[in-house]
Amino acid sequence: MREVAVLGIGQTRVDEQWDKSLRELAGDAVLEALHDAGAQRADGLFIGNMMSGSANHQQHLGAYISDWVGMRFAEGLKIESACSSGAAAFRSALMAVASGDLDIAIAAGVEKMTDSPGGEITAELATAADADWEVDHGISFVALNALVMQRYMYEYGWKHEDFAQFSINAHANGAHNSNARFQKAISLETYNKAVMIADPINVMDASPIGDGAAAVVLVSADKLRSNNGRPLIRIVGSGAATDSTAVHGRKDPLWLKAAELSAQKAYRQAGIGPQEIDLFEQHDAFTIMATLSLEATGFSERGQGVRLAVENEIGIKGKIPVATRGGLKARGHPVGATGMYQLVEVVQQLRGEAGETQVEGARYGMAQNIGGSGSNIITHILKAD
Amino acid sequence: MREVAVLGIGQTRVDEQWDKSLRELAGDAVLEALHDAGAQRADGLFIGNMMSGSANHQQHLGAYISDWVGMRFAEGLKIESACSSGAAAFRSALMAVASGDLDIAIAAGVEKMTDSPGGEITAELATAADADWEVDHGISFVALNALVMQRYMYEYGWKHEDFAQFSINAHANGAHNSNARFQKAISLETYNKAVMIADPINVMDASPIGDGAAAVVLVSADKLRSNNGRPLIRIVGSGAATDSTAVHGRKDPLWLKAAELSAQKAYRQAGIGPQEIDLFEQHDAFTIMATLSLEATGFSERGQGVRLAVENEIGIKGKIPVATRGGLKARGHPVGATGMYQLVEVVQQLRGEAGETQVEGARYGMAQNIGGSGSNIITHILKAD
Repeated sequence: MREVAVLGIGQTRVDEQWDKSLRELAGDAVLEALHDAGAQRADGLFIGNMMSGSANHQQHLGAYISDWVGMRFAEGLKIESACSSGAAAFRSALMAVASGDLDIAIAAGVEKMTDSPGGEITAELATAADADWEVDHGISFVALNALVMQRYMYEYGWKHEDFAQFSINAHANGAHNSNARFQKAISLETYNKAVMIADPINVMDASPIGDGAAAVVLVSADKLRSNNGRPLIRIVGSGAATDSTAVHGRKDPLWLKAAELSAQKAYRQAGIGPQEIDLFEQHDAFTIMATLSLEATGFSERGQGVRLAVENEIGIKGKIPVATRGGLKARGHPVGATGMYQLVEVVQQLRGEAGETQVEGARYGMAQNIGGSGSNIITHILKAD
Repeated sequence: MREVAVLGIGQTRVDEQWDKSLRELAGDAVLEALHDAGAQRADGLFIGNMMSGSANHQQHLGAYISDWVGMRFAEGLKIESACSSGAAAFRSALMAVASGDLDIAIAAGVEKMTDSPGGEITAELATAADADWEVDHGISFVALNALVMQRYMYEYGWKHEDFAQFSINAHANGAHNSNARFQKAISLETYNKAVMIADPINVMDASPIGDGAAAVVLVSADKLRSNNGRPLIRIVGSGAATDSTAVHGRKDPLWLKAAELSAQKAYRQAGIGPQEIDLFEQHDAFTIMATLSLEATGFSERGQGVRLAVENEIGIKGKIPVATRGGLKARGHPVGATGMYQLVEVVQQLRGEAGETQVEGARYGMAQNIGGSGSNIITHILKAD
């Protein structure tokens, strides 16, 4: 397996981007990544996207976007694994370069959700759950997460307010990220008084949707003679695992087995453990998911993930900084693009380009993208040399 | 890049399978492939599918089907490139094994189209074309192909009847395939008198949709000590290329540039040319596509692909046998599964398991899967030793 390095990154702001079509959004991120890489084109384009077929009436994004960015004739695919489609596209591009088949590939994620001609986004998002065994019985995605959060609080004795710092930290960091959907810090009072969506999840526990795209250019590391004086950033670990689509199918609904398995594989490949990770772009779609991800990925004991928030060990100077550019909560969650935003943000940190939210001396960065209610989880570890 | 071999194959019949859910259809093919391989599970499942999100209200097929087939916790992804989603899934599984990251992977394709709760299938299929530049102006997929066929007949002087043998050959072969949707030979008269859909494409020029699934188990060839006394079947060439999504964007709408490029890459990797290919499972979604594919892939001169049909060089004993198990025309075209059916059928031929339509002494088999109106084309060459 060839070593693979990141040559360039690009992203649009996550927002209501009604003046941009799907191809323009994706194109802006891909062209910025190519420019950043100093490259004209790539051998292949791997697009993470969940709902373009239904929400935008456009499938077949591989060919569609390759052509738009001036890469006609390159390989082009769309990869879908619900909210983890972004990291899945990254992993697919990684495999194509690692195998030796492609020399340079682009992984991108795009989602256009806020002015969909296709219908109602809550229903679209529910297609990530089990249609027969969950959705047809009337449960939405946030309701599934609310059941899990209720159970967690009951089992381990935490209060709703204990989760506040996940939201406060994300918004504090997002305030310094010009690509974030929300660029304003929030107070504990804002968190506590936020509108309830599905008890106990209020609007400050939940990440916002958005329109956005992010992209990374990958090359074989041994072909990389120079990277314009910037640190060489290699992908040193990559793991993917699934779990039952329906939450009720799991032995333990409070344990993200797929997070554990994918992180273990990534750690093993990288030859490190959680203690070496300098920052963690985790999938904080809901505060309960942020909690469970910290536990399964090895940053805390079972039932104690939320303690890292309570003790504010998740800030930029904490034991394990998370959501350093705003996370899903403040940067926003354009579902199929989110995993790519996480990876772009890890690269920003490892390059030392994260401005006011820079983690000092960051060398190992991890990104973990969760699809469904923990049913498809993909973990990557990047290293700066 | 590690060499990769086929360990097992599985398929369902292409039909109106109203008694099977999406997961049951996919599961039947995957479990048959695992059984054929003598394996219990694989490290990853790569599912080709186009329209489950809209037609079946179910995305996230990687996790969904992994769990159903007893492969919970394995990696699982859905890959989409319109009608070439099947071959795209195969190529993704191939890259994962070739890179050394996975040791055993399953590529599968599934589509459930005939009893969709999601809406009208012609509109779903149109999402493979360009939404802004083609579909919103009212053109359907068959109409796009009809324009191309009109132009071809005008430029090169062929008559409609000259295309008949593509359809007659496919139905003659499909009559011997118990998994084909249509298992009955047709006459020239049937072809000539068939109902017109979009002039000059009549119903015998066009392939039928259907519900179906097909799967292949892939392993690293160097780990394969024995294959139950069956020939070792290796993937010796794999190429993918795109073209403009909108047909009007191309310099020459009568030349499948993506077929040429993907086939050239596959030939180069295999170290052979078209003259070594013993059979060609081509993408005969329409007779005009069968024609153009033969030209761009090197089996005939420009404008002369249809001559191979006229002279019946496409039969089992012809110069280049095509649609040996019925092709899209008679086996049926469950879009995201089609590319996987083609590969399963190539393996049947290379194993000598193709019964009445066996190509004698077949050693090299090629499969070519076309997405959109020629905008995403993936070519594989398999070899039996």
